[in-house]
Amino acid sequence: MATKRIGILTSGGDCAGLNAALRAVVHRAIRNYGWRVFGIRDGSMGLMERPLDFVEFDLSLVTGDMLRLGGTILGTINKGDPFHYPMPDGTFRDRSSEFVEGYRELGIEALVVIGGDGSMRILNQLCRQGGIPMVGIPKTIDNDVAQTDYAIGFSTALDVAGEAIDRLAPTAASHHRVMILEVMGRDVGHIAINAGVAGGADVILIPELPYTLEGIANKIADVRAEGRNHALMVVAEGCRTETGSSITTIQSGGEARYGGIGQYLAARLTDLVDAETRVTVLGHVQRGGVPSMRDRVIASAFGVHAVDLISAGRLGRVVAWQHGQVVDVPITDVANITRAVDPFGTLAQTARGLGIYIGEMSS
Amino acid sequence: MATKRIGILTSGGDCAGLNAALRAVVHRAIRNYGWRVFGIRDGSMGLMERPLDFVEFDLSLVTGDMLRLGGTILGTINKGDPFHYPMPDGTFRDRSSEFVEGYRELGIEALVVIGGDGSMRILNQLCRQGGIPMVGIPKTIDNDVAQTDYAIGFSTALDVAGEAIDRLAPTAASHHRVMILEVMGRDVGHIAINAGVAGGADVILIPELPYTLEGIANKIADVRAEGRNHALMVVAEGCRTETGSSITTIQSGGEARYGGIGQYLAARLTDLVDAETRVTVLGHVQRGGVPSMRDRVIASAFGVHAVDLISAGRLGRVVAWQHGQVVDVPITDVANITRAVDPFGTLAQTARGLGIYIGEMSS
Amino acid sequence: MATKRIGILTSGGDCAGLNAALRAVVHRAIRNYGWRVFGIRDGSMGLMERPLDFVEFDLSLVTGDMLRLGGTILGTINKGDPFHYPMPDGTFRDRSSEFVEGYRELGIEALVVIGGDGSMRILNQLCRQGGIPMVGIPKTIDNDVAQTDYAIGFSTALDVAGEAIDRLAPTAASHHRVMILEVMGRDVGHIAINAGVAGGADVILIPELPYTLEGIANKIADVRAEGRNHALMVVAEGCRTETGSSITTIQSGGEARYGGIGQYLAARLTDLVDAETRVTVLGHVQRGGVPSMRDRVIASAFGVHAVDLISAGRLGRVVAWQHGQVVDVPITDVANITRAVDPFGTLAQTARGLGIYIGEMSS
Amino acid sequence: MATKRIGILTSGGDCAGLNAALRAVVHRAIRNYGWRVFGIRDGSMGLMERPLDFVEFDLSLVTGDMLRLGGTILGTINKGDPFHYPMPDGTFRDRSSEFVEGYRELGIEALVVIGGDGSMRILNQLCRQGGIPMVGIPKTIDNDVAQTDYAIGFSTALDVAGEAIDRLAPTAASHHRVMILEVMGRDVGHIAINAGVAGGADVILIPELPYTLEGIANKIADVRAEGRNHALMVVAEGCRTETGSSITTIQSGGEARYGGIGQYLAARLTDLVDAETRVTVLGHVQRGGVPSMRDRVIASAFGVHAVDLISAGRLGRVVAWQHGQVVDVPITDVANITRAVDPFGTLAQTARGLGIYIGEMSS
Repeated sequence: MATKRIGILTSGGDCAGLNAALRAVVHRAIRNYGWRVFGIRDGSMGLMERPLDFVEFDLSLVTGDMLRLGGTILGTINKGDPFHYPMPDGTFRDRSSEFVEGYRELGIEALVVIGGDGSMRILNQLCRQGGIPMVGIPKTIDNDVAQTDYAIGFSTALDVAGEAIDRLAPTAASHHRVMILEVMGRDVGHIAINAGVAGGADVILIPELPYTLEGIANKIADVRAEGRNHALMVVAEGCRTETGSSITTIQSGGEARYGGIGQYLAARLTDLVDAETRVTVLGHVQRGGVPSMRDRVIASAFGVHAVDLISAGRLGRVVAWQHGQVVDVPITDVANITRAVDPFGTLAQTARGLGIYIGEMSS
Repeated sequence: MATKRIGILTSGGDCAGLNAALRAVVHRAIRNYGWRVFGIRDGSMGLMERPLDFVEFDLSLVTGDMLRLGGTILGTINKGDPFHYPMPDGTFRDRSSEFVEGYRELGIEALVVIGGDGSMRILNQLCRQGGIPMVGIPKTIDNDVAQTDYAIGFSTALDVAGEAIDRLAPTAASHHRVMILEVMGRDVGHIAINAGVAGGADVILIPELPYTLEGIANKIADVRAEGRNHALMVVAEGCRTETGSSITTIQSGGEARYGGIGQYLAARLTDLVDAETRVTVLGHVQRGGVPSMRDRVIASAFGVHAVDLISAGRLGRVVAWQHGQVVDVPITDVANITRAVDPFGTLAQTARGLGIYIGEMSS
Repeated sequence: MATKRIGILTSGGDCAGLNAALRAVVHRAIRNYGWRVFGIRDGSMGLMERPLDFVEFDLSLVTGDMLRLGGTILGTINKGDPFHYPMPDGTFRDRSSEFVEGYRELGIEALVVIGGDGSMRILNQLCRQGGIPMVGIPKTIDNDVAQTDYAIGFSTALDVAGEAIDRLAPTAASHHRVMILEVMGRDVGHIAINAGVAGGADVILIPELPYTLEGIANKIADVRAEGRNHALMVVAEGCRTETGSSITTIQSGGEARYGGIGQYLAARLTDLVDAETRVTVLGHVQRGGVPSMRDRVIASAFGVHAVDLISAGRLGRVVAWQHGQVVDVPITDVANITRAVDPFGTLAQTARGLGIYIGEMSS
Repeated sequence: MATKRIGILTSGGDCAGLNAALRAVVHRAIRNYGWRVFGIRDGSMGLMERPLDFVEFDLSLVTGDMLRLGGTILGTINKGDPFHYPMPDGTFRDRSSEFVEGYRELGIEALVVIGGDGSMRILNQLCRQGGIPMVGIPKTIDNDVAQTDYAIGFSTALDVAGEAIDRLAPTAASHHRVMILEVMGRDVGHIAINAGVAGGADVILIPELPYTLEGIANKIADVRAEGRNHALMVVAEGCRTETGSSITTIQSGGEARYGGIGQYLAARLTDLVDAETRVTVLGHVQRGGVPSMRDRVIASAFGVHAVDLISAGRLGRVVAWQHGQVVDVPITDVANITRAVDPFGTLAQTARGLGIYIGEMSS
């Protein structure tokens, strides 16, 4: 009987811990089952391009140093949805069959997909179309994948964002400033609310909760009344203006006065609070760098369990972290579902309990 | 009606994140309920000594900088069990009534105890004896408190231990050595197995699993056969020798050849594996330093929830972290119960899946 | 004889290590000479305001924890040049005599000024006008103070900037992007060139050297020809456009298309190099946070030596770090002199030696 | 004309930054001069063994990731002095001619040696015997190489040691303990005195200065009198007992009661100071891990300059860092000379100025 062959790819935005998951998949598949493992380059691109773009892993390619390396050694460039792929001439084409043919050409019997909820949806669709058995591993610095307490990358992103607040706090105090830190989170505020609580923010704005400029200004006034001459704000990049407009809309509207929500708030608050404001936009440093220990542990557990699922024939499932343990759930419970910050959950209640302004309860 | 007064103390070995919990308790109690909060110094000592040794908190004492400060500003010196307190003359005395009287003298209506499973047991006993309402917050770098996915301090200790492996890996490789890292964990191996998986250890020894020197030597031989000229071992300080003797017993036996289990293993392995070995004993650096973001978040959530429990009259309970949320459980489910590493749980399976030697299955 | 009284203030932008210098001054003055030390708040403001705004230090205020604390506990708000102070009505006033009178009112015999070259100039002028003996301690993250190998704050800022490159490198590689990191440095490129060399940048732009877009694009093309699919650029915020225009000029010109030089370059390069570009503007995180060990050592040495200079009656001098040792130079050798990156010095030659594009030799 | 060939090796104990130096040598030699570069494995062993053990570098082997990698990718196992090489039968043999022959077999025209003062001496002797042109690059975490302000590795080791004090300080305070940190430094105390000043130690012991137990106890008594309930000590591993005995001597004397000087001091001080003491022995974590930005900058500058020296025919020289710039000095000014901490230099004076006990002035 021929040796079993499996493929693995990383899809969507990169983050810390992807390589730990890759490494775990390779170790488990080779050491325990004696399979061959093919790493597909650049997300789904490696199967869509001809010649196929892949690497066959052996143990020498997955040393312990991979644990310490951010990003993904497979690459994860995203040129577009295979079902709706943008062509140079401006049109779109369905390239899904190229993906399916590539999969068959490579001769693999199952595919491990490391991705977020969006990638899961597309890959699941691709795999179903081709009758391809798939297992998913959730990753996203936003931590918005359903069914899992933690996705790969969130822990490191939180550390980076929290360290930034630690660095901003003393300079805010020295100059009596209001410091605004804009962190990642296009749709959800997990990084913002966790980093804000951990770093001692006075104001945390997340896409899940509306806010008012008066609410912010009142909090800063309270801070002053308590004798502190500076304040810290953390805002998720995906927050809208206080009236619900997206910053993108403002920019498309021909004004383009603000680089992002952080700069918008700085501009609006400077007069309201009579204080110097400064904005820091952390950007891509939240994605990369040496992965946190937690991300490495979770990613390693995910990788081992994903291979065991394939071995057990339990396909169409996504691994997850629940209650300190690795489990698995049907992919349909995860694909394209966004886990938001619960406005009445632990983090929100904790923030309120510390006197942090996190916006208004929606009526 | 008089303002409600509550007390708070930190008990047992210190760790990172205690101050975040103190801070959260003070914020919630003062901001939300308008209570007065008294910090008792040096664990139970502050109530046993006369005059009482305490500080009344106000918000100016619990700034955001406390989040960044390791240890406990209340102190946590442990001179002995109040029920069996060692006197200068070598005898023991029951000083529990002094604690109870101190509690009454301070006029507090509930006590928040931040401690491990051992402290919980003693404090619970003290509180029951005095009819004192108590709420517990679990802390311990060992993460062996029952019912909670994470206790305060574990996350930071894991980071420190993992970073040590990161630092040892390249020097091990450069010198072709077997590096042994001894980490904390007197009874359980949570730090060891998490740090070992995260850092890329080849061998992880924990108190929960027996091992053989041959098992270790075989793994190191395998590593060499795979073309790597060095190896990394992580061992919990509480591990016994391969025959089940405690290192303390060996030392009391008049030999005292080994400072700890790390040095014992180095001595025994040097010949077996024909390699240079070096030992690092991390010690108290695992307790201190800037707390991790995760420890700060969990500790803050614990503190807020503990105060809410008192407010709701839900006493005799311990807060816990389960499934990404703060919950609470009866103190009797926690006190004096040790949560060990499950030999068939996620971490052990992950370690085995990566080819790490973690000892023998007990028959 | 009355006990000698000295004052100390921190002036200009804050940075890491200021508190270590304050602490050293207080320790040396009190322990060794038995003087009294007065900390003046908010730079020169504390002497200009009435009542005077200051704190008298004792040893309990300068514990070891100050070493670990970024910023300055004295504050350093800068509302304007005392000789040309902006009034609420839009006019300017010479408030220098208030400073001099404040100094006399406080009854101090010498003033330790921790500041950059600009602060040194103004304070030196103020002190000369008032016949006030002054000693300077150089600080600036830009490291552009003359006569000293290192000013307080540079080492920490370099660490922060370098860590950002470390975090950007793997995400650049994963997504095949050109990552642009904009670091501090309004007039000089010390942070940029040191961080760029340390982090493995392909292109480093500093205000001291002109560059061409073609030069950058050629380097990125070379990188690709060598088989690498991504590139890293570090640019000092003070760099001008390739034609020598300042970004500020462009913005004042009514266009305001770019937040800063990083965004300008991203916009210009995207087409030239046919690659995705992403910009990170580090901003104030470079100022703050836990000071590096080097900054603490240098700051401590500066503080002790500054007090010794006062004791020896060697006034009008600035302490400096040369060749691994603390020395002192006349304040006139430092005030208002900017130490730029030498285009033929060690760092520039090292960068060129590594194949980094750092701009064109001016003809 | 044949392409010039040069060799490079790393000798002695590994440290952070070696790979940055290797990388710089390769870049400069290939990019600027078009030479071929051969990396010799395991110090001098690679030339003594047959077949020769080496790798030819190309640019793809020296990516930016090498900057972030501790240790040396060439290895640096030290099995003995080639002039006095220990054989399996217990005898010694002069293997220097094998080294010289290996050098000729490899056909290289110059050798870059990255090593400490001891390695420099031996390699210089080997090279002179063989008429081999050599250039040296100083490295050692101890920073005891003459003529250079900084050797590769010191900056990172200082960071690690300083961070350990940062972690020990809060746990010392929480438990009212005397914490003793034993750091590397067999002959000199540069790490100890720099880390101790940076971390806020109360006592620093270095091999260069004698001390008394009474001196230490008095300082700790002073600390208590000032109202602090804990103390921090940093001691270089090479310190002797207060009477001048080496710990090794005590151990060979059949007592072996102490693992090292840290444990010796803890045992002796526990009664003298009536306080709990705890010892941390940092060990090899000081060698490894992600190199500091400073080490990367200095190592890169050293590498580029070393190649330029070969190109200029300026052989028999060692590169050095002086006054913020790279320079070079004759190898005879460096080989086998140890740069100690000056008892009256900046660091010692700074420590004394802060009230730190650093031992007695020798009479």
